[in-house]
Amino acid sequence: MTEKTENERFERGHALLNKIHGTTGQDVLKGISETSPDLSKFITEYAFGDIYSRDALALRDRQIATIASLITLGDASSELKVHIKAGLNVGLTKEEIIEIILQMSLYAGFPRAIHAIKAAKEVFEEQED
Amino acid sequence: MTEKTENERFERGHALLNKIHGTTGQDVLKGISETSPDLSKFITEYAFGDIYSRDALALRDRQIATIASLITLGDASSELKVHIKAGLNVGLTKEEIIEIILQMSLYAGFPRAIHAIKAAKEVFEEQED
Amino acid sequence: MTEKTENERFERGHALLNKIHGTTGQDVLKGISETSPDLSKFITEYAFGDIYSRDALALRDRQIATIASLITLGDASSELKVHIKAGLNVGLTKEEIIEIILQMSLYAGFPRAIHAIKAAKEVFEEQED
Amino acid sequence: MTEKTENERFERGHALLNKIHGTTGQDVLKGISETSPDLSKFITEYAFGDIYSRDALALRDRQIATIASLITLGDASSELKVHIKAGLNVGLTKEEIIEIILQMSLYAGFPRAIHAIKAAKEVFEEQED
Amino acid sequence: MTEKTENERFERGHALLNKIHGTTGQDVLKGISETSPDLSKFITEYAFGDIYSRDALALRDRQIATIASLITLGDASSELKVHIKAGLNVGLTKEEIIEIILQMSLYAGFPRAIHAIKAAKEVFEEQED
Amino acid sequence: MTEKTENERFERGHALLNKIHGTTGQDVLKGISETSPDLSKFITEYAFGDIYSRDALALRDRQIATIASLITLGDASSELKVHIKAGLNVGLTKEEIIEIILQMSLYAGFPRAIHAIKAAKEVFEEQED
Repeated sequence: MTEKTENERFERGHALLNKIHGTTGQDVLKGISETSPDLSKFITEYAFGDIYSRDALALRDRQIATIASLITLGDASSELKVHIKAGLNVGLTKEEIIEIILQMSLYAGFPRAIHAIKAAKEVFEEQED
Repeated sequence: MTEKTENERFERGHALLNKIHGTTGQDVLKGISETSPDLSKFITEYAFGDIYSRDALALRDRQIATIASLITLGDASSELKVHIKAGLNVGLTKEEIIEIILQMSLYAGFPRAIHAIKAAKEVFEEQED
Repeated sequence: MTEKTENERFERGHALLNKIHGTTGQDVLKGISETSPDLSKFITEYAFGDIYSRDALALRDRQIATIASLITLGDASSELKVHIKAGLNVGLTKEEIIEIILQMSLYAGFPRAIHAIKAAKEVFEEQED
Repeated sequence: MTEKTENERFERGHALLNKIHGTTGQDVLKGISETSPDLSKFITEYAFGDIYSRDALALRDRQIATIASLITLGDASSELKVHIKAGLNVGLTKEEIIEIILQMSLYAGFPRAIHAIKAAKEVFEEQED
Repeated sequence: MTEKTENERFERGHALLNKIHGTTGQDVLKGISETSPDLSKFITEYAFGDIYSRDALALRDRQIATIASLITLGDASSELKVHIKAGLNVGLTKEEIIEIILQMSLYAGFPRAIHAIKAAKEVFEEQED
Repeated sequence: MTEKTENERFERGHALLNKIHGTTGQDVLKGISETSPDLSKFITEYAFGDIYSRDALALRDRQIATIASLITLGDASSELKVHIKAGLNVGLTKEEIIEIILQMSLYAGFPRAIHAIKAAKEVFEEQED
């Protein structure tokens, strides 16, 4: 059992969150922090400091898994947009993201694929501005 | 609009299904065919002939997305085992598959991550025999 | 507001449950009653006495909706089997039930369609004995 | 294995989509096509050309199953509205659609029944204009 | 089997609904009643007259269970807001509600916890006005 | 930002897990650890060391929320049994647990309430031995 301090986990998570999500991530956490600073802290420490920072899977591969999961969950379109944007940040192409959505028509059904295409469209259009 | 025949889609899907799933895929389809040969045919033609066969996303990446989706769906443990096995077939390591499961604790929660670890354990043990 | 007594609702529900589910329905309720007689009572009164007994939709149409819903929920395979059997009781053919499952591949995805085919297979085989 | 060309599946699907959904269906597909013409093509070919066009279940019965599935999925209110409208197009009455929603309170719970009633209300009001 | 009349169940449910939800509950039911007075009646009679009115679990405990369930369902943010407000009405503190949301990050995942924090924020801000 | 070490989080989580779950908890984690010691570690540190150990919600209230969430998720019957047992450990009565299940019929539907009653029955019977 290593003796890493809380602070190390937070700092590592904070840096990785910025790398993956850019200013979007900080905006999401700021909105959460007004009501629950602890939820914001746990996302930084556990999701990013503990999980995303592990070397055993590339960030690009992690975003494939996350986008697939959010499409399957179905109701998380604001989260999905945040992670489609992050996918582009860590090396997925627009074509690959569309392809993940097509693949999800098989496992999550067409309604969730259609919603995901709308989310992708909005992200792609914002990127062009 | 290309004029590909049904037969081409079926043949392409059948070959790809064998490449990804080996004999396991044929066993699953055989079980389905006893009750609904058409469902088996549509899986071969649409899922494999149309979707999996597209070049825009690598088979390894497709399995990451599928494993993440099946963990998130939650109740599909026999399907999940089939696709963990397929993941190993198309180049994912055991470590990467465990990592996808850990990542899913963030989006689908711990109960579904725990179920997925049990499914992975069963697949890994079968592989060792 | 009509002044129907509780007893009327229970009697009407009990009779309809027997008509739709035969002895299977009473077996399910008996199993529930050992732990919660009230859950069994509420299913009889509310689900069957209040909802299923309404004239505005035929029993056959209600079973189409219920089978589609249970496939989509995904993890309720024992319930699904009970309602596939009920579907046959109220006039759906095996072919129509398989067709509902194929239709669900579009909205709930292939893994849930595959699970439903397995459930249907088990019911159809029991019927043949 | 019949040798139907892709084109036949697309043409049959396109015609059926127009019959069931009218101009609404084309509007939905046009929105999708801007980002993924292939998703639009697969919906036309597979969902409508392959599945909806099968004779073994009436279009009215298919819409009962689809409406029940979309209520159960829960987050697909724009899709649900499209299919409530389609239900009216293929012969379901408003009373029958409300009845399907009441039936879903049993299997998908009250929150999803309440959301579905709001979706139905919006469709019914648009029809009156 | 007691011989309680329908009217007693409705009156008991109506009174309890007002106690738990105040005018918000009546507003929700009024919106539903325009399209389906029966759904409104069944919610009053079954949900409130039969279930919520049982003494075996305190109203505060029932709201904990309901808030947890609605966060897990995921897409019911308007229902969730109604029940967060009701939680405050029956004795839960803001801190306890935030704590239920943090707890749900474990079982329903972070996206649904984040959505729930947004819903809580909106309710808390309305209360301050 | 406090400077709590990893080790403190693990120790606190380990102690609380034993208090809530007894030997059952250690058995579950041991099963997980064979395939992924890290998942077991994260459950101990994050779920129990970070979340369950917070004072702002009583352990009894946390179990109400967890049981409600697991019923709503639907497919986690082994997890549900573990947490029904834990609910009894931290002060919920059998009657209260049954009541939570009845309450869930409103939000998650009858099939998931029926599955939960079966899980409760199994736990109650094990306790009597």
